Amino acid sequence: MAAPTPADLADLDAKDPLARFREAFDLPDGLIYLAGNSLGALPKAAAARLEAAVRAQWGSRLVEAWTACGWIEAPARVGGKIARLVGAAPDEVIVADSTSVDLFKLIVAALEARPGRQVLLGVKGEFPTDVYVAGEAARLCGRRLALVERDELEAGLNEDVALLVLTHGHYRTARLFDMGQVNARAHAAGALVLWDLSHSAGVAEVDLSGSGADLAVGCGYKYLNGGPGAPAWLYIAERHQALLTSPLAGWMGHAAPFDFAPDYRPAPGIARFLCGTPPILSLTALEAAIDLMLEAQVPAMAAKARRLGDVFLELAAERCPALEPIVPGPGQMRGGHVAFRHASAGAILADLGRRGVVGDLRGDVLRFGLSPLYVRYQDVGRAVEALTAALAAAPLKVG
Amino acid sequence: MAAPTPADLADLDAKDPLARFREAFDLPDGLIYLAGNSLGALPKAAAARLEAAVRAQWGSRLVEAWTACGWIEAPARVGGKIARLVGAAPDEVIVADSTSVDLFKLIVAALEARPGRQVLLGVKGEFPTDVYVAGEAARLCGRRLALVERDELEAGLNEDVALLVLTHGHYRTARLFDMGQVNARAHAAGALVLWDLSHSAGVAEVDLSGSGADLAVGCGYKYLNGGPGAPAWLYIAERHQALLTSPLAGWMGHAAPFDFAPDYRPAPGIARFLCGTPPILSLTALEAAIDLMLEAQVPAMAAKARRLGDVFLELAAERCPALEPIVPGPGQMRGGHVAFRHASAGAILADLGRRGVVGDLRGDVLRFGLSPLYVRYQDVGRAVEALTAALAAAPLKVG
Repeated sequence: MAAPTPADLADLDAKDPLARFREAFDLPDGLIYLAGNSLGALPKAAAARLEAAVRAQWGSRLVEAWTACGWIEAPARVGGKIARLVGAAPDEVIVADSTSVDLFKLIVAALEARPGRQVLLGVKGEFPTDVYVAGEAARLCGRRLALVERDELEAGLNEDVALLVLTHGHYRTARLFDMGQVNARAHAAGALVLWDLSHSAGVAEVDLSGSGADLAVGCGYKYLNGGPGAPAWLYIAERHQALLTSPLAGWMGHAAPFDFAPDYRPAPGIARFLCGTPPILSLTALEAAIDLMLEAQVPAMAAKARRLGDVFLELAAERCPALEPIVPGPGQMRGGHVAFRHASAGAILADLGRRGVVGDLRGDVLRFGLSPLYVRYQDVGRAVEALTAALAAAPLKVG
Repeated sequence: MAAPTPADLADLDAKDPLARFREAFDLPDGLIYLAGNSLGALPKAAAARLEAAVRAQWGSRLVEAWTACGWIEAPARVGGKIARLVGAAPDEVIVADSTSVDLFKLIVAALEARPGRQVLLGVKGEFPTDVYVAGEAARLCGRRLALVERDELEAGLNEDVALLVLTHGHYRTARLFDMGQVNARAHAAGALVLWDLSHSAGVAEVDLSGSGADLAVGCGYKYLNGGPGAPAWLYIAERHQALLTSPLAGWMGHAAPFDFAPDYRPAPGIARFLCGTPPILSLTALEAAIDLMLEAQVPAMAAKARRLGDVFLELAAERCPALEPIVPGPGQMRGGHVAFRHASAGAILADLGRRGVVGDLRGDVLRFGLSPLYVRYQDVGRAVEALTAALAAAPLKVG
């Protein structure tokens, strides 16, 4: 299949149902920003709402803003909105802490809910924080973290596995697990599954309820565009909520935090997985970003992200044969980025930067995030042009 | 001793070396805000710097702001500034997570560093989150949380105690422990001590190094004025840093987070107690607030907070005999607030609100925070006037 021509790209942009959302972001003129999988761009509404939260809420209402301005409900309210991006019920998602902290809470809670099973199962080569957190959490619970290759998952799922923890979209290869299939196999083995959706929520179709998912976490600052270090979110299927308790028994997870009771009594629903006082400023930016995504809707975002990736791969195959793609090819299920291996990846990335194209580097892998709300098809065309020029200028290096 | 007259209060304000700092805060006209111990007021610089961080950093520099704008160093940089407020070396404090999460990390780390000892010792009636978190952390480590009365602390410190966890300034009574004395007694028994400084940092003299402190945490949104849900901070004496590891092994605590190595290798210093990606927007507001406190300096802030409290207590003793003070009296060591028990506390607080005075309620206790950078002596005079009127109007209730 021939790669799309400039006219094809212009046509794709002209017909893009999400084209108007680019105006909702504050992006430097002329920059082609393809690192939204590391840090999403600034939604204009996030800047405006944050200013209001600072001046009209914190500055003017002071401590009464906790109730008068809806701060105290923000973790549940924003969680309920994120739920709509990942196919969950509103009371199955809450915003809290960071992805790493949420992973810890859910891993420990799940291991304690499966006391007879010794193994926490994970997958080799996944995002390091997941593996680090899993290892320490397992050790603390007197269990064992076992890591298997991605393709040996089924063999690893035996009757000693309490919990399987894995990322839905891989941070390097953009491969997506079939969530329903993995859940079904784990459940058949009596194990729970905890998904990290940091690289898929907001950019791929995710159906937590429909796929029978147990637990999930996700970050707020990548495709959700919530800002640097935005709080993370966690999901617990309603059927598990009363059976799991958080090891981080902070006061905001108490059934009645403002009673200041001496004994810990976890809140009845998912709120028991809150811990400390919620970070209102960061939550405000995140909520503005999520509102935009709810307007755009997941099916359109996922379809555009995939098509942007297809176009990138088709153009790169034609113009940049020296790049080795490591992501699923055109037409296949894929997360929100494309990635290529090259021995001079670092030099190429730096050169791209000088040409106004921002990507990022993971070892010898170049990654380009294709955030569907602000990346245009013609941006992809210009990025591949820049990549072609950068490759021509790159030092010869045998990988 | 006669209570100060209005002329005395005007004179105290005229001579107040911190008077100029009130202008650095954005406070509604006419409001007397005495809940800065729950949520500190908005520093004007925090609003301005947050706007710059959003538009000029996130919006313009995007992902490169992590290095170009000093985001990645922010937890250590702001921690180093907080260190100067609490008598610690710059590399002994780091900003991370919430107070509750930080308590958990340090409790588990300390219990694991004292494997032969079965008891985590705490004090009854302290801020609930401390007790909740301690209870779960102890259980997870296979240890036991023992709570003693405040005055029985010494008897509780036996050779089975691994760690003593307690709050320096009490959230209701404003009583301050003698930090050096407690540390010495705990050390004599072979125990470590973890202090929660949420109600004393920034408003009382704290000398972590000089008092031989081991570990501490504190919140960012009370007297530090860092904004709603501002990140918390933690302190580890340099001598302990290599011996403790965080149970929350997130990637930001790794020795080389951007190597994406498969194995967890904790950072050499206190950075190993970072966990997830730092919340930059909240950190920006907190840093602006801390910079203001460093300019004001702790001795002046502590002296003024104490004097404001003395004045409040003297005036209340004269005008409001129906109020029962529950804090240390004039001239004594005290945290940053005054508090009074009254059977109709709720009705009185509501009436005060209508009179433009904001305090808060903890059960049947009225609390008034005396944040030294923006509360004036004449504010205290007007607050006691309002309190006198509110008491006269309060429903008679036998407590």
